[in-house]
Amino acid sequence: MSVAAYLEKNKDRFLQELFNLLRIPSVSADPKFKGDVVAAANFVKNSLEKAGADRVEICETPGFPIVYGEKIIDPKLPTVLVYGHYDVQPADPYELWDSPPFEPVLKKTAIHPEGAIFARGAADDKGQFYMHIKAFEAMMATGDLPCNVKFMIEGEEEIGSDNLDKFVLANKERLKADVILISDTHMIGMDNPSITVGLRGMAYMEVEVTGSNRDLHSGTYGGAVANPINVLCQLIASLKDENEYITIPGFYEKVQELSAAQRQRLNEAPFSLEDYKSKLDIKEVQGEKGYSTIERIGIRPTLDVNGIWGGYTGEGAKTVLPSKAFAKISMRLVPDQDWHEITTLFENHFKAIAPASVTVKVKVHHGGAPAVVSDSSLGYQAAEAAMEETFGKRPIPTREGGSIPIVALFQKELGSDPILFGFGLDTDALHSPNEHYGVKNYLIGIETIASFFRHFSTLQGK
Amino acid sequence: MSVAAYLEKNKDRFLQELFNLLRIPSVSADPKFKGDVVAAANFVKNSLEKAGADRVEICETPGFPIVYGEKIIDPKLPTVLVYGHYDVQPADPYELWDSPPFEPVLKKTAIHPEGAIFARGAADDKGQFYMHIKAFEAMMATGDLPCNVKFMIEGEEEIGSDNLDKFVLANKERLKADVILISDTHMIGMDNPSITVGLRGMAYMEVEVTGSNRDLHSGTYGGAVANPINVLCQLIASLKDENEYITIPGFYEKVQELSAAQRQRLNEAPFSLEDYKSKLDIKEVQGEKGYSTIERIGIRPTLDVNGIWGGYTGEGAKTVLPSKAFAKISMRLVPDQDWHEITTLFENHFKAIAPASVTVKVKVHHGGAPAVVSDSSLGYQAAEAAMEETFGKRPIPTREGGSIPIVALFQKELGSDPILFGFGLDTDALHSPNEHYGVKNYLIGIETIASFFRHFSTLQGK
Repeated sequence: MSVAAYLEKNKDRFLQELFNLLRIPSVSADPKFKGDVVAAANFVKNSLEKAGADRVEICETPGFPIVYGEKIIDPKLPTVLVYGHYDVQPADPYELWDSPPFEPVLKKTAIHPEGAIFARGAADDKGQFYMHIKAFEAMMATGDLPCNVKFMIEGEEEIGSDNLDKFVLANKERLKADVILISDTHMIGMDNPSITVGLRGMAYMEVEVTGSNRDLHSGTYGGAVANPINVLCQLIASLKDENEYITIPGFYEKVQELSAAQRQRLNEAPFSLEDYKSKLDIKEVQGEKGYSTIERIGIRPTLDVNGIWGGYTGEGAKTVLPSKAFAKISMRLVPDQDWHEITTLFENHFKAIAPASVTVKVKVHHGGAPAVVSDSSLGYQAAEAAMEETFGKRPIPTREGGSIPIVALFQKELGSDPILFGFGLDTDALHSPNEHYGVKNYLIGIETIASFFRHFSTLQGK
Repeated sequence: MSVAAYLEKNKDRFLQELFNLLRIPSVSADPKFKGDVVAAANFVKNSLEKAGADRVEICETPGFPIVYGEKIIDPKLPTVLVYGHYDVQPADPYELWDSPPFEPVLKKTAIHPEGAIFARGAADDKGQFYMHIKAFEAMMATGDLPCNVKFMIEGEEEIGSDNLDKFVLANKERLKADVILISDTHMIGMDNPSITVGLRGMAYMEVEVTGSNRDLHSGTYGGAVANPINVLCQLIASLKDENEYITIPGFYEKVQELSAAQRQRLNEAPFSLEDYKSKLDIKEVQGEKGYSTIERIGIRPTLDVNGIWGGYTGEGAKTVLPSKAFAKISMRLVPDQDWHEITTLFENHFKAIAPASVTVKVKVHHGGAPAVVSDSSLGYQAAEAAMEETFGKRPIPTREGGSIPIVALFQKELGSDPILFGFGLDTDALHSPNEHYGVKNYLIGIETIASFFRHFSTLQGK
């Protein structure tokens, strides 16, 4: 039986298994889901074992475990390392979900007429890493596995992969591979397959502004004592100028400027600004002056407030002048910005601009390096050929705005370029309510991954 | 028996009764306390009846009821109208209270060595209006009531007194009085009695800024799509300039400027900036350039964000670019600013400055007029004499930053100046966790109110 026939025969089961995985609320950021994150690790372990992997192991870390498994059919054959993550983003705000985030359902949408799976983690990253386990199962079951394969599926990607570095450093030999596959990105569209070759890095901070030692009556004190919310707003507003240029001294110092030719190529990717605005229901985009939307996402750093809170946020009105205000602020970074450096620049700047009427604390949540990967390696060529086979169209290289901090780590420590082999769409609502993943994307992904193994084996054999 | 002897004999019971009233969580802003607000109205009704009032009535309104009661001993005698409110501010944040907000306890503090009552509403306004009922009880019991008295105790002061205007207009005859007493303000200190002659008005708004139609991944979209939190911060920051001057066009147009002599008199009130900063634990005050702290509170309008929220505010980090951000913003107004006009100016300005990348909604919560009352009326003279009698020191007139919107209403509709006869301190933590009211303030307040009745009767008789 061919891989394609096996896939066709088993696709309903493949979907049901993914549904079972999606039912586990493995939110790594929230301590109350701790047990569920561990349950998801066990699910991955069982799946790898059933698919035929050897030496499957739950590798403990000071945080959540990394699940490892492998199938070495012949040490002389090329080896593929698959990376993914079984943890998911928090699901709030729950009230904006049309169906409960951890009760996956199939629904048809305009973009997914064959149906999409709605659940937290459907695309990011459960639906995407699980394709690799199913492709592996299919190749094993049909006697068609042409390369050795290793799996490393972690549980802390959404909180900064704090313990992955040490694991990678301590297991360099075990993780040795000729190519690394990561499906945690998206394509331009089903009609426009693409492969991500650039990712932004990140520095994520939480700031706390304190005025007086207690909440005050806004009548008795308003106008005479610093209001930490007003001050926080002023501080945040001052971090960008009228051209949306970030004002932190030194912030842009290491930003790689692309040549005019490189920028032109980037802007040749299919993109409709009208379509983009219409899907988001916005009248205008907003970003750094002098750059296109594709460039703003792909090659320029940015700063976003991811959360803000302070004072009275309940029903009705309360005339309080609060003692404290808070914000979570993240910066997306591009080559060659260093997130440790940027973190320090931010901290120093934010404290320096705070007025004497308040005190400011800056807490560093996590960070990650930006990355650019080759679009000419053997692995890239194999991915290109596989996508051309299943999509009927040659994929184009793109730069995505998201961050997979471990890409730079893999480049540095494991010495090979990861292939960012994502099959999602940017409309999948990652990190948002109603996250989903197309059934067609899931199935074509499995097929394409198997095809990659064949092409990679052939190219390596040449 | 003298009023003073009656008070001494009954003071423990007077405290216990106030405790019982404070146990009712009559938070008018929060629908879940609806039943409790009504229970507080009934408590007031019973207290008035027991103290000896006639025609006690729970007057229904479309919101919470107004409790009315009176004692007309002789139509030819002068009449005192007492106003107060039995509703309280929300108690959040609960975690900052040292004892539960609706379980009153007595604790000694540096400022209150004889003890203070800690509970939401202890000073604002339950502890203060209840003094009037107890003073009335004492005068009745000792056969020493020298004036007619009317009580109007409402339940919507903390949410804008929406239904009081209609009640006052419909009951002008019933509410007719020679003076109105309101104890809902504070004095400079136990050693520095004062009477408030100026109050700021208020306009309270809630704003909503919407970017895209759903929460987005801050990597995939960050830098290219407006972030409503960043935009909200920019909008709020732009509402004040570097001198803390409010930038809304027309905002200051009707602000009464005081003469140099008036400003000097105001600044003669006892005030230590070092002490003020030390009590609030701040290094510097912050306010409109060119004005002292006393002036910033008393005679200048201001704008404060009372609450802000948007994006992810839970534990850890979430890389979301939210769809919406919100803020509650209130402006304190001074004579002759009109809160309806200011509301319109704010709305128009806020919408005008919003960039095309977002949509903005402005909701008006409530508002109230600023007020200045005479410091030479017969009522004021009687209050002055009463305080001099009980405190041993002549009170000085001050301007307070808070708002009692109905003062302007009473001036206009009932034709007499209310006396802002407050006995609290500005350290009482009104609207804050650990609100309290000194036991001594409570008892001296009752005594002073009874003294007021005697002086007022004498002055009116002259």
